[in-house]
Amino acid sequence: MPWLEDFAVGDRVGFGRYEVTHDEVVAFAGAYDPQPFHLDDAAAAKTHFKRIAASGWHTCAMTMAMVVKRQQEIDAEDGDDSGGLGAVGIDALRWLRPVYPGDVLRCETEVLAVTPSRSQPHMGSVKSRMTVFNQHDQPVLTQEPIALYRRRGQAA
Amino acid sequence: MPWLEDFAVGDRVGFGRYEVTHDEVVAFAGAYDPQPFHLDDAAAAKTHFKRIAASGWHTCAMTMAMVVKRQQEIDAEDGDDSGGLGAVGIDALRWLRPVYPGDVLRCETEVLAVTPSRSQPHMGSVKSRMTVFNQHDQPVLTQEPIALYRRRGQAA
Repeated sequence: MPWLEDFAVGDRVGFGRYEVTHDEVVAFAGAYDPQPFHLDDAAAAKTHFKRIAASGWHTCAMTMAMVVKRQQEIDAEDGDDSGGLGAVGIDALRWLRPVYPGDVLRCETEVLAVTPSRSQPHMGSVKSRMTVFNQHDQPVLTQEPIALYRRRGQAA
Repeated sequence: MPWLEDFAVGDRVGFGRYEVTHDEVVAFAGAYDPQPFHLDDAAAAKTHFKRIAASGWHTCAMTMAMVVKRQQEIDAEDGDDSGGLGAVGIDALRWLRPVYPGDVLRCETEVLAVTPSRSQPHMGSVKSRMTVFNQHDQPVLTQEPIALYRRRGQAA
């Protein structure tokens, strides 16, 4: 994982590939969001979804799976010299379009702000805008994660 | 589910009870957030978590499970006269404290804003602040969901 100094406002990157399956949509919804339109096509046909659609929180979870996979690929390349300290939270999460079984998702991120901490000089935060697209290049989700990173050469 | 007119700024309600289990924390993390501190105690011991902790997205999913259960209880009492049109998104999501296996979660919400739509007079939005607490009454998560509701007596 990178360090605070590795980020610059405007940096953009695309990554990830996630195939959404019917079984996974139903399993997630059954456990965490058992609304009829997330569980079967007949119930979804009566709604604006038209057919079974993933829970919005499932889309967030699938997005996280893409993020973690990318982090782990970077760590494997760079060694375990991680500056990442985890996420504080998310601003401006929006579910823009339904996500359906059969969709294939991918991510794009752009760095919005890099802010060294005033109170804790060994670290700082990176705010990004992340957009998740489906296979038609339609945005299905946007969010602005805020993550903490260590600064190089600064004792904790 | 209620209608737009059923909400007023300042309305508060508490609901939900969710027992966080070790097996569920590991299963969610394995699928969507396979970072070591979400998968086993030994890896978590080296981090600020100290022991295995739930993925932040898992906490969101468990929160949704409490929300849907409450909605379905209200629908069962009031009949299927639903004014709910789903969520647009979430502002200001913050993970405040780790959530551990054995924790018991509950929710409190307060209505922040009720806004009739200018362009679509049959509907409007409700923005709330939701806080999730653990069994020690410590807040573990806050978020501000934005949900759409139909207005009574207005044709779509």
